[in-house]
Amino acid sequence: MLLTLDLVGIFVFAISGGLVAVRNQLDIVGVVVLAMATGLGGGVIRDVVIGAVPPPAIADWRYLLIPVVAGLVTFWLHPAVGRLEREINVFDAFGLGLFCVAGALKAQEYGLGPAPSAALGMVTGVGGGIIRDLLAGRIPVIFRHGELYAIPALAGAAIAATGAELGVAHAVIIAPAALVTTGWRLIADQRGWRAPVPRLGPPSS
Amino acid sequence: MLLTLDLVGIFVFAISGGLVAVRNQLDIVGVVVLAMATGLGGGVIRDVVIGAVPPPAIADWRYLLIPVVAGLVTFWLHPAVGRLEREINVFDAFGLGLFCVAGALKAQEYGLGPAPSAALGMVTGVGGGIIRDLLAGRIPVIFRHGELYAIPALAGAAIAATGAELGVAHAVIIAPAALVTTGWRLIADQRGWRAPVPRLGPPSS
Amino acid sequence: MLLTLDLVGIFVFAISGGLVAVRNQLDIVGVVVLAMATGLGGGVIRDVVIGAVPPPAIADWRYLLIPVVAGLVTFWLHPAVGRLEREINVFDAFGLGLFCVAGALKAQEYGLGPAPSAALGMVTGVGGGIIRDLLAGRIPVIFRHGELYAIPALAGAAIAATGAELGVAHAVIIAPAALVTTGWRLIADQRGWRAPVPRLGPPSS
Repeated sequence: MLLTLDLVGIFVFAISGGLVAVRNQLDIVGVVVLAMATGLGGGVIRDVVIGAVPPPAIADWRYLLIPVVAGLVTFWLHPAVGRLEREINVFDAFGLGLFCVAGALKAQEYGLGPAPSAALGMVTGVGGGIIRDLLAGRIPVIFRHGELYAIPALAGAAIAATGAELGVAHAVIIAPAALVTTGWRLIADQRGWRAPVPRLGPPSS
Repeated sequence: MLLTLDLVGIFVFAISGGLVAVRNQLDIVGVVVLAMATGLGGGVIRDVVIGAVPPPAIADWRYLLIPVVAGLVTFWLHPAVGRLEREINVFDAFGLGLFCVAGALKAQEYGLGPAPSAALGMVTGVGGGIIRDLLAGRIPVIFRHGELYAIPALAGAAIAATGAELGVAHAVIIAPAALVTTGWRLIADQRGWRAPVPRLGPPSS
Repeated sequence: MLLTLDLVGIFVFAISGGLVAVRNQLDIVGVVVLAMATGLGGGVIRDVVIGAVPPPAIADWRYLLIPVVAGLVTFWLHPAVGRLEREINVFDAFGLGLFCVAGALKAQEYGLGPAPSAALGMVTGVGGGIIRDLLAGRIPVIFRHGELYAIPALAGAAIAATGAELGVAHAVIIAPAALVTTGWRLIADQRGWRAPVPRLGPPSS
């Protein structure tokens, strides 16, 4: 079941990458590559950093296939896909929760302490989107708009990493930790909560 | 002989990186770094992902020296080098064919299946150009213009990976697989074949 | 003492990342992530490439904590921090010297020859700033302005790598090699020395 959830999360992330590519008028190569980078990028960074190579996201063809399909679907059906953006955002919040928690637990299994595991869990959740934005030529959205995305991701990852460090079984910790991320993200989105931006104008450069 | 071909491919890729840097008015550091990143980047990404570290492109000083020379040549002789762009494109197509096939075969030797090996072969061929464009502050050209570059690269890599999986000797598979990439690339370039771009305008954002 | 120097260097690099983020009007997530990427990025790239994973910069919570603190300090006190830019540049030159030399020596310990070790030492010193600039949506400054930053970094790294290759004790080589980088950088900055840029206009594209 975790595999299925993981693949669904990758699919949704990949759709978001494909949509950014279509809106930037990229060609089919750009759409598929951005879909793959968004769906798989966070997990690949985590795996390379902890030494889990080759990353399953690359060695297992199912992980490769899913974002390719998502990219092609977005390429051909982008007007319909674009109209589903509200629904995609909800699935994206669930994918984020799952990725952060799974990423933190994998880092912890590779011997990292709770703070690094929490950080790598967050990277698992937000890394794909950062790569997507770099490839599309824009500053990563999670840095710019004060949208609460990375902070809920870090919270869920930290809960999972701390729980695992304290010996709580994975089966027990996954759902509540992921729900903190997903719930915080969804509520923040709905209510328009914002992360702070620097006060005053920027200092003269 | 493969080493020589490999070094020639790196040299040509590095020239393309140096030209992009010169045209963006970068200084000598930028020209040399873009030359190195373009010549070596794809192979380094592949090696890091499959766990072949330190990558030969970094551990072997000949691989480091070649793109530095290419960068310096481009820096000092860029008007002449720029006029050779048509010839450089032809060599580039040969370098692309070689890199994709060699990359796919190396991934397969490290135990990856045919689909991941084909994907990593393509990454070996196109990764350096993507890094070059990111460092130069532009959206990667292979995503934008519908130019047939990544798709022929994937085709050659897939043929090589499939052949190796079926037990065909490397010596037998390398030339035909590379020629598929190189030939397709050259013919597409000459005839103006294009990869599809999204139909209609992009959906409202 | 080396650990303390290392942490001071990370702190100063991270401040520079935070300032770039504040000046680009990024939110608190962007400020902290840019601080972390600038402070830790060069060392993480080096470690991933030589196979020293997980990198201490990620596995050791002190390395994670320092740039987070630097990012938060910059976020809240950026007008004051921005006025200290001249002082920060001096500390930055010391951090650069230390990072390049330590990076080259670590690569050498992992079995790389002097040329690759020197190259990776330079990457350790300048990699974080390159990532910072990519994340902030600008062409890396070390490629653009002809400022002498990467070249002094390479010089110190090369001295350290060559010394270690010749069997000179680390304790003997570190200070002079780092001072070459730091001194060259500071003098070049004060006197306005510049790296060359391409002569003439760029060739027609």
